[in-house]
Amino acid sequence: MNKPIITAFDWVPPFARGQVRDLRVRWALEEVGQPYDVLYLAQGSQRHPPHRARQPFGQVPTYQEGDLTLFESGAIVLHIADRHGKLLPTDPAARSRAIEWMFAALNTVEPPIMDHAIATLFEADAPWSKPRLPSVNARIDGRLGELSDRLGDDTWLEGDTFTAGDLLMVSVLRIVAGDGHLDAYPNLQAYVERGTARPAFERALADQLAGFTGQPPAELRAWLEKMGEAA
Amino acid sequence: MNKPIITAFDWVPPFARGQVRDLRVRWALEEVGQPYDVLYLAQGSQRHPPHRARQPFGQVPTYQEGDLTLFESGAIVLHIADRHGKLLPTDPAARSRAIEWMFAALNTVEPPIMDHAIATLFEADAPWSKPRLPSVNARIDGRLGELSDRLGDDTWLEGDTFTAGDLLMVSVLRIVAGDGHLDAYPNLQAYVERGTARPAFERALADQLAGFTGQPPAELRAWLEKMGEAA
Repeated sequence: MNKPIITAFDWVPPFARGQVRDLRVRWALEEVGQPYDVLYLAQGSQRHPPHRARQPFGQVPTYQEGDLTLFESGAIVLHIADRHGKLLPTDPAARSRAIEWMFAALNTVEPPIMDHAIATLFEADAPWSKPRLPSVNARIDGRLGELSDRLGDDTWLEGDTFTAGDLLMVSVLRIVAGDGHLDAYPNLQAYVERGTARPAFERALADQLAGFTGQPPAELRAWLEKMGEAA
Repeated sequence: MNKPIITAFDWVPPFARGQVRDLRVRWALEEVGQPYDVLYLAQGSQRHPPHRARQPFGQVPTYQEGDLTLFESGAIVLHIADRHGKLLPTDPAARSRAIEWMFAALNTVEPPIMDHAIATLFEADAPWSKPRLPSVNARIDGRLGELSDRLGDDTWLEGDTFTAGDLLMVSVLRIVAGDGHLDAYPNLQAYVERGTARPAFERALADQLAGFTGQPPAELRAWLEKMGEAA
């Protein structure tokens, strides 16, 4: 097949580098051995045409393969797995369980983690953010404790085989892996380390980081200086 | 096949009736014409064995079909669609686009809507909830505006055919359909009305509501009285 084309940003604030969701799609493409091209978008242009036609919510990534354009990194990862017959078991029941972990990563574990990002980054200055943080952290910790109990001593969520469910769960856990949230859960910490030690992940991360060759838009510069993270 | 068994609550607070996520699974089962049984759980028991073995996060619904036990309503709806060859197009590209809307419903549109539920219900008394509400509403409104633009005058998200993506998107939009969030978007309001007018939805909703035959747990009664919604 022709190389698919994904979209990614040419610039994001330092705290977001290595976290933008095209990483999840790059990782899946690396796992299945599919080369791809990247269309880089200047920060801000994602909210305008022509990107709005690709992505109604003005986000990255998107994925184009011939006439098919897809958005939502979870759906793209699932499409790549199906297209290549990898990252998902062929047994129907095992396949459904791996997909269950994809949804669990994105709909159960990620929402409180994104709430934490809102409280500590995007709304860090809002008067409600600090007082609310213990409640947000408690919700994250609840999910992590439950996930840790389920994972136990297993290598991956469904045993010995890395699936698209692990790819997304590791991607979600990585968001808070560096800030102490996983300290109480050594098995989750080791799980994230196993995932991110995979050569496919390492290549995907290096490629995302190498793509940030652009400049911040003018309207973000004051905010960046206030955050102490001016590029 | 033998009838699958789903789990649901025998009691939830009045505001949650018609919203618990087993409704999404019931709806999918009704759409494909698959009869099912329900194992009702007393409120609170979902966090303890034996339900924890079915659902690591202590939520409902779960879905049992022979030896296969699944959780995450999104994954269960996808499994039902695949199992019955309905609710998803057979053309691979169209199928991937319908699945894209399933993920968009759960990972892009639902998180700010659940944040609204946290601010107005679960943390209604917290001092940060009211001041934060305009910011939460702005995030919801942003998503709704974008979705409204994409839907335009179409009947369903991918044109003329109702898919599992519509089933989940309508389910998510319903959460805020009664409180004014959709007033600015007549096409979304009509979309939700089209979805919920489907006989399969009506049966699913009636069956969920008929299942609330239990009593609130003792530890919730004081909270319920404070909320003015004592059962």
